[in-house]
Amino acid sequence: MTEKPTEKTLVTWHEQSVARPRGCVVWFTGLSGSGKSTVANGVDAKLHGLGQNSFVLDGDNIRHGLNASSEILAPIHGAEFAKRFGLGFAAQDREENIRRIGCVAEIFCSSGVIALTAFVSPYRLDRQRVREVVVAGGSPIDFVEVFVDTPLEICERRDPKGLYQKARAGEIKGFTGIDAPYEAPEKPELHLDGAQPVEKLADQVIAFLTNLGKISQA
Amino acid sequence: MTEKPTEKTLVTWHEQSVARPRGCVVWFTGLSGSGKSTVANGVDAKLHGLGQNSFVLDGDNIRHGLNASSEILAPIHGAEFAKRFGLGFAAQDREENIRRIGCVAEIFCSSGVIALTAFVSPYRLDRQRVREVVVAGGSPIDFVEVFVDTPLEICERRDPKGLYQKARAGEIKGFTGIDAPYEAPEKPELHLDGAQPVEKLADQVIAFLTNLGKISQA
Repeated sequence: MTEKPTEKTLVTWHEQSVARPRGCVVWFTGLSGSGKSTVANGVDAKLHGLGQNSFVLDGDNIRHGLNASSEILAPIHGAEFAKRFGLGFAAQDREENIRRIGCVAEIFCSSGVIALTAFVSPYRLDRQRVREVVVAGGSPIDFVEVFVDTPLEICERRDPKGLYQKARAGEIKGFTGIDAPYEAPEKPELHLDGAQPVEKLADQVIAFLTNLGKISQA
Repeated sequence: MTEKPTEKTLVTWHEQSVARPRGCVVWFTGLSGSGKSTVANGVDAKLHGLGQNSFVLDGDNIRHGLNASSEILAPIHGAEFAKRFGLGFAAQDREENIRRIGCVAEIFCSSGVIALTAFVSPYRLDRQRVREVVVAGGSPIDFVEVFVDTPLEICERRDPKGLYQKARAGEIKGFTGIDAPYEAPEKPELHLDGAQPVEKLADQVIAFLTNLGKISQA
């Protein structure tokens, strides 16, 4: 016979949330065209094949929703709201962009997922702050910074979105690597040679996560 | 023998992200103290026991990080940044609070997780907008609005955080149910009688999700 819950048991149950082993945040950083998204998606596919919970956070699922521009927000929420909360590419906006992504990655991590993020994230301080948020929620091994180190010449030759061409033509201002700085990680957990085949790079990440104990046995 | 990837194959792989069946968003709404978090955590525990991927988004993991106040942001990001991006409880801030939570819930849903959210979310329009975001990413059955309908007298008697007492004393302004409106859902997918035992309410949600086909067989 079960007792009818009282206010006391209600509150008690509230506090008993499901205990899940934490995942981790694998934070890819590098120039546009360096291969961050490609490698992240390759790692995601391999993790999925290994029966792990993983997910890629990238521009596609962030910039149209959570970190939408004022142009996207205005028709739905009005001009004043959009002006205040829409994110552009100014310094503060980029800082808030990375801050929110870091918080979402941390939530995924706390839900037991291996969160793979693929953003240029050119500033050391922004990446360091995300690291601190993730580590504070668990342990130092929960944040894995992966530097996809690909020479600018190669990135510019690939130019998958035609952005370098626009930046060189002056149509985009403040483009990382052209007229805005990229601060390379000083002590990333993984330093990948972006000129190598993607398959090989993805395997390096998988090997690192395996050694870290972040890949559970099925 | 594997061919060395060219720029072409790099781009191609990028586009092939892992195809995951969508989860859904179970959006609990109701007064403070209505039992939203309690029921959401009960459902989460049951889903976990059934081998499903689920997760609760609530004030604990949102207000200290993603939707932090300017007081939390200022020491890390500076006063000017905090003033612009910190969220309080004014009308626009509440709107942005729910908008961001909706976007995160949608990302979880797209990653295959059953995302359970527990926020008062008193305004119909805010909930409707979240519904549109989630449905746009998948199908109408991906958003399940659950009205935890508990009489104000019961909520106020429970008052688990002492908030009603503060609101009655005038120490908190604009408190939902006291001096701010709660717009009850007109056609929620589920209408729960919050005076019933939590166990029973959680079972009702599980039954609904089962009928919807959102609980996969192990």
